[in-house]
Amino acid sequence: MRCALCGRKAEVKLVRYGTSVCRSCYPEFFRGRVEKTVERLRMFSKDDPVCVALSGGKDSLSLLHALHLLGYKAKAIFIDLGISGYSEGSRKVCEKLCSDLNVDLHVYELRRERGLTLSEVSRKVRRPPCSICGAVKRQATNRMARELGCTVLATGHNLDDEVAFLFSNLLNWNLNYLARQGPVSEAKFKMVKKVKPLCFLTDEEVRIYAEIVGLEVFEGRCPLEGKAPLHFYKRIWNELEGMRPDVKSSFYKGFLRKLKPLLSVDEGELRSCKICGEPTSRDVCSVCSAFMKV
Amino acid sequence: MRCALCGRKAEVKLVRYGTSVCRSCYPEFFRGRVEKTVERLRMFSKDDPVCVALSGGKDSLSLLHALHLLGYKAKAIFIDLGISGYSEGSRKVCEKLCSDLNVDLHVYELRRERGLTLSEVSRKVRRPPCSICGAVKRQATNRMARELGCTVLATGHNLDDEVAFLFSNLLNWNLNYLARQGPVSEAKFKMVKKVKPLCFLTDEEVRIYAEIVGLEVFEGRCPLEGKAPLHFYKRIWNELEGMRPDVKSSFYKGFLRKLKPLLSVDEGELRSCKICGEPTSRDVCSVCSAFMKV
Repeated sequence: MRCALCGRKAEVKLVRYGTSVCRSCYPEFFRGRVEKTVERLRMFSKDDPVCVALSGGKDSLSLLHALHLLGYKAKAIFIDLGISGYSEGSRKVCEKLCSDLNVDLHVYELRRERGLTLSEVSRKVRRPPCSICGAVKRQATNRMARELGCTVLATGHNLDDEVAFLFSNLLNWNLNYLARQGPVSEAKFKMVKKVKPLCFLTDEEVRIYAEIVGLEVFEGRCPLEGKAPLHFYKRIWNELEGMRPDVKSSFYKGFLRKLKPLLSVDEGELRSCKICGEPTSRDVCSVCSAFMKV
Repeated sequence: MRCALCGRKAEVKLVRYGTSVCRSCYPEFFRGRVEKTVERLRMFSKDDPVCVALSGGKDSLSLLHALHLLGYKAKAIFIDLGISGYSEGSRKVCEKLCSDLNVDLHVYELRRERGLTLSEVSRKVRRPPCSICGAVKRQATNRMARELGCTVLATGHNLDDEVAFLFSNLLNWNLNYLARQGPVSEAKFKMVKKVKPLCFLTDEEVRIYAEIVGLEVFEGRCPLEGKAPLHFYKRIWNELEGMRPDVKSSFYKGFLRKLKPLLSVDEGELRSCKICGEPTSRDVCSVCSAFMKV
């Protein structure tokens, strides 16, 4: 097999694209896919300031790396929730990549902003940390993107993430969540536009990119995370993919093309939280609700 | 644990119903579930002549047994496709049960009706036997039910079957198939009403019924069947059920309640096949098309 790009010996077999490339050309191939998604789905242009939410994992770091090398105006943010044995390590690899790329990294520290770490607030209000974490991250990334003057917030969700979410929402027939799931959520009220440029690339394809370009990533799993069914769903979808190559992609694209247009989003009018001013569908946002109870 | 029905020692744990029963009461419990489904979904009444399509497997035999004991007017049919090492054995257990219950069994023999067995026609027209089998069975069961004066045709599809079909149709986003999937298909043109009274009972629940009431069932698998993905999907759903009891039922019921009403059936007008007169959406039905090419 020859590399489809340079003709040398192929080293990475890309079954679902019906082609193979060498390790030197793989990053170019990968970035080509990212750029194609960004352009086709009109996520942003080379002139738009894009805010990339980094977690320290391979996906968000690969996304920042790829967008930067493609010439997009990427800024980076990191949400430090103060999770011991996790946040420090994650933050360090984000700082390293941003320093290497000469990209500004803006950090939101939960303890500084709200007075408590995630574990502390979770213990005090007796709510599972994951539910508060999601709300905090959604709010903080949106606020930071807005305050940094970015019109778009990009996250590193890959195809495996999207398929696992989709499957989880189908299992529960959460039509309202399904109606909102997808690669692009348009801006509204104080919410910036949100995009997922890696949504058509598999976990494995991102892993290979991170490895070849030599990204230092944080491999640890969050110590607060319970038995996450999403990991189980991902395993199932990997089995399905083994039986039917490209099933993840066709399932996800089929959903976007066929089912999503039939669903209507039913969400309350957005307004400003009476306490922090951030967008919410209630009087007080869920982050303030959690921290008020402390 | 005590049996919820008679108070003696419980022997069958029914996790998803939050109860347990003894082996003597299980058949009554099972038939109660069948009756409830038949009544709630207005499938048929005790006065309607119901045609039960038997395959020789535990599901259809349990269905006939349960309906008969519940006092429904059940007639039985069997489609003999002439599959060697399979059809004879299946037919024998159907004849045995019908004789035990004193229910008439009406047999459709493909070779007698169309001149060839399934394997023969499949080989001659070079089409996979499963595709022809489905068409032949749909047509023959419908015709027999109609000719026997039955207003309803009941099949033994259980919850595991329905969930596997549903999942398969979701994988491919076959919206047209999804729109038609469910426990009841109303009569139209020359098509009798079709119902699945076991659709809310799991494979395992039916297996226990067949075992306790002592049904002689045919265990063999069709020798013509290829690598059927439905078996693989059933395994996945059993894993999911192990992680989240009752997920099969809530997934299937959620589909019927939430997604199905959003889908519209897009099917051509039905007319009579120019050759055999059976209902079809084309000029010549798919069974005649296959046999014409021989």
